[in-house]
Amino acid sequence: MDSIDMILKALTHFRDARDWDQFHNPKDLALAINVEAGELLELFLWKAPEEANRDKVKEELADVLAFAFLLANKYGFDIKEILLEKIAANDKKYPVDKAKGTAKKYNEL
Amino acid sequence: MDSIDMILKALTHFRDARDWDQFHNPKDLALAINVEAGELLELFLWKAPEEANRDKVKEELADVLAFAFLLANKYGFDIKEILLEKIAANDKKYPVDKAKGTAKKYNEL
Amino acid sequence: MDSIDMILKALTHFRDARDWDQFHNPKDLALAINVEAGELLELFLWKAPEEANRDKVKEELADVLAFAFLLANKYGFDIKEILLEKIAANDKKYPVDKAKGTAKKYNEL
Amino acid sequence: MDSIDMILKALTHFRDARDWDQFHNPKDLALAINVEAGELLELFLWKAPEEANRDKVKEELADVLAFAFLLANKYGFDIKEILLEKIAANDKKYPVDKAKGTAKKYNEL
Repeated sequence: MDSIDMILKALTHFRDARDWDQFHNPKDLALAINVEAGELLELFLWKAPEEANRDKVKEELADVLAFAFLLANKYGFDIKEILLEKIAANDKKYPVDKAKGTAKKYNEL
Repeated sequence: MDSIDMILKALTHFRDARDWDQFHNPKDLALAINVEAGELLELFLWKAPEEANRDKVKEELADVLAFAFLLANKYGFDIKEILLEKIAANDKKYPVDKAKGTAKKYNEL
Repeated sequence: MDSIDMILKALTHFRDARDWDQFHNPKDLALAINVEAGELLELFLWKAPEEANRDKVKEELADVLAFAFLLANKYGFDIKEILLEKIAANDKKYPVDKAKGTAKKYNEL
Repeated sequence: MDSIDMILKALTHFRDARDWDQFHNPKDLALAINVEAGELLELFLWKAPEEANRDKVKEELADVLAFAFLLANKYGFDIKEILLEKIAANDKKYPVDKAKGTAKKYNEL
């Protein structure tokens, strides 16, 4: 089975066994992503870029991904498709000859 | 090719064509996830849970996922593995008989 | 003494007694604001708008404010001044006759 | 007039002239704080700690503060009081002799 399908199957099975879909409206899923993103960020607070605890990063990043997958699922988005579309759009927004080696935003290139 | 491998290949190809790996330290990737999560959240601000613009949600969610995939890649995490591990851990943290139908945190069950 | 001056005096005294100014660079203070904002947000997750625990909101909101005051202090911003300036700018961005009773963003009015 | 009272007067006057209190439930105000905190954070993304644009930091920080003040106002919190209480609590949580010169969390001291 494709890995994304397998992850979604495990996530929705976990959710449905607890009857949690009733709480998972899109707005609260977006909140949950922000809450988990904040917990991930805390691991880097007051630290040099490489100093976060790797095992904790793994856990918090998994939480961010889990809610992001569930939000995609809620809207019926195909995760591979929306990512490849976004990369294609950014490919135009950030032309290689202008964007190479600079971290500027597209509107400052 | 597995969908996660395909996404990672597209993301790292996009990144490396622009020579952006030099900016992508773990801390700034965690920042980027938070910035994108905030943009996603804005689509729901002052709105009922289902009123966000679906196309914009698609785009911002893709951004969150893209940076989350890149951070996983930076640490060498296997995305499927860390998600399945996290679901297994939450399975114990939130036993079905206690967690069913309630949105309480595990420490309040 | 003016209340903002009193708060800043208490915050910087607390910080300096622990020799923490060395960690409080602007970027990490902005991170800290996001981390605390995420903890505040968690109190509302999966809940109706008025259901958060009031005492916990008080604590997390105080944390957001504390780091926001410290960041203002770091840049030498006068908090009253930057807020009154921002309100004046928003007064033009959101003219009463167009913005009254609608939650639309200024670029959609 | 005390500066916090003056700020709150200007904020609520701005809000009420637009009849926006109807949108400002506690949950959406907490969302707004996170959205603005994310915009503040973006100014530091891919940058060294001191490289953000000072004028933009001023604006985004004012937005964070504005919604934080409005949330405090919504709950009837006295901003000076909740900050001084939090500093007093942190004073016990982070004893000077243990916390001096280290950025560790209280549960790691």
